[in-house]
Amino acid sequence: MQNRQVVLTERAGGIPRPEHFELTTAEVPGTPAGGLLIRNHYLSVDPAMRGWINDTKGYLAPVPIGGVMRSLAVGEVVGSDSPDYREGDFVTGWFGWQEIAAVDTDKVIRKVHQSEGPLTASLGVLGLNGITAYLAFTGIGKPEPGETVLVSTAAGAVGSIVGQIARLKGCRTVGLTGSDDKVSQCTEEFGYDAALNYKTCGDLSAAVAAACPDGIDIFFDNTAGPIADSVFGAMNLFGRIIQCGTASIANWEPLPEGPRRERFFITKRLLQQGFVVFDHFDKWPETIDRLSAWLKSGELRYREDIRDGLGEAPQALLDLYEGTNRGKTLIRV
Amino acid sequence: MQNRQVVLTERAGGIPRPEHFELTTAEVPGTPAGGLLIRNHYLSVDPAMRGWINDTKGYLAPVPIGGVMRSLAVGEVVGSDSPDYREGDFVTGWFGWQEIAAVDTDKVIRKVHQSEGPLTASLGVLGLNGITAYLAFTGIGKPEPGETVLVSTAAGAVGSIVGQIARLKGCRTVGLTGSDDKVSQCTEEFGYDAALNYKTCGDLSAAVAAACPDGIDIFFDNTAGPIADSVFGAMNLFGRIIQCGTASIANWEPLPEGPRRERFFITKRLLQQGFVVFDHFDKWPETIDRLSAWLKSGELRYREDIRDGLGEAPQALLDLYEGTNRGKTLIRV
Repeated sequence: MQNRQVVLTERAGGIPRPEHFELTTAEVPGTPAGGLLIRNHYLSVDPAMRGWINDTKGYLAPVPIGGVMRSLAVGEVVGSDSPDYREGDFVTGWFGWQEIAAVDTDKVIRKVHQSEGPLTASLGVLGLNGITAYLAFTGIGKPEPGETVLVSTAAGAVGSIVGQIARLKGCRTVGLTGSDDKVSQCTEEFGYDAALNYKTCGDLSAAVAAACPDGIDIFFDNTAGPIADSVFGAMNLFGRIIQCGTASIANWEPLPEGPRRERFFITKRLLQQGFVVFDHFDKWPETIDRLSAWLKSGELRYREDIRDGLGEAPQALLDLYEGTNRGKTLIRV
Repeated sequence: MQNRQVVLTERAGGIPRPEHFELTTAEVPGTPAGGLLIRNHYLSVDPAMRGWINDTKGYLAPVPIGGVMRSLAVGEVVGSDSPDYREGDFVTGWFGWQEIAAVDTDKVIRKVHQSEGPLTASLGVLGLNGITAYLAFTGIGKPEPGETVLVSTAAGAVGSIVGQIARLKGCRTVGLTGSDDKVSQCTEEFGYDAALNYKTCGDLSAAVAAACPDGIDIFFDNTAGPIADSVFGAMNLFGRIIQCGTASIANWEPLPEGPRRERFFITKRLLQQGFVVFDHFDKWPETIDRLSAWLKSGELRYREDIRDGLGEAPQALLDLYEGTNRGKTLIRV
């Protein structure tokens, strides 16, 4: 039996493209001692991947050249040498872009139970994206009812959940996104009070100020760069900026330049903080419960963009950076 | 009887210079109804003044053209129509660059008692500078013993106190300053473990990294700009950046550019926050007690640069931006 895998062949520098990967075939290994053999059902495709690929100081070691691309996945245990897992269990964890993963149990994040919702939700709204949205927004943002929240990548896998949680917390929500289609999605599906297409709205600073007549108390920033620059001027006194992603910056080497923000920090007493969900494993279980309850009550919506076939993963990743995805991107293996 | 005053004649745009002020003479007014007449003894000269002068959105309304320059001062009550103050009381507050101030009692910050130390301390180590240093450093920095603290404007009126408080909290302290004389002051008087002259040390990023072999946990930033840029790369995971001043940026209109920092926020989970001491009046009394105790025990040192004569105030202010002062700048009236 063969195991198809997507391996990294070259460091991208900036945005990873299909030519930086290769679809290869290896023998299916046996179940490792004390570990598991997992048949992947769905693979996750995440913006954070470019940081995992590039050989710069990040929060995780870079994927080695020739190695299977690091990825979260959800799959079924098909071989177990661990007393904690049985064949037929569904698990989510670091199983990589491949059909079959032979892993130690420390690569498993958790078991997935049918009662929580569809299997795919474990990689999106009940996975990295939902947990990031909830913990970053509530933990750093500390939202109060009546505050204005601006979300960049507002229709994205994380942003769309932030917008909805902000609304559930009683905030007024404004989204920035990159197409008219996504603007409609923001207001019609995700309940934003207003949404702007930053590519076509003209002077973005003026458009943001007009869409946020009471200023902005919390800025959930997934883009950085010029889009974020347009928001800083509209921040309110004691505003909070959650730095969760930097989607609009294609390359950080050399460091791009932009307007200095130090003075805003003082005159407005801003707080800006970076967030990485892997620092907060202790809060994952309660967060999944919270999100799962909103999901079941219908208060939280999500959209998925599911592609078929392992070989589609590299192109799906590029589509993410080009903004042509339509919801959380997943690969059905 | 005449009252000499320094009035603002022109907005500076950037750094205020003597030609933007004029020494004038007015009649001494009577004691206002319900208020006080105060004979100023010492006037404060502060870097924040350029923000109070320029007609841009700051945390205080700009000083009007033709108005007496806003300033903290310490003086003696020479006329009182308030039951809370008697002639002969010493008070500190917003009395301006003038000999005699006729003010409402809301301009008084507090009475100054002889037991706390010299009168001048109420404008420095027991005033705006000391209170800023303590509350910003402990409140945002949350120092832990063994952490490394880097202070820009390390020999300045605020920075020198931050460095000493950091040492008292068990931190390793490294100072950045702009002359060899101040470097010696940092290590010999203020107890810094190391200090660098940023003007002569060559590659500042490399020098900072060498002076902070365990990285930087807390960056108390009074300079912003290229000096601060050299520090960001040496920040540790979960580092805190306290934005207290922007001394190295001469002009904020138009916004100067510099390397983007968003990615550092994520990879290092940095927190950056701006601080203005006027947000924290409730904590002033306990902070003054704390600082006063360190002062009496000899654990806290300070240096003053006292100039004689009201007319010296504008030049003393310029000297502050040019870094030629030698401690907290005060005008003896």
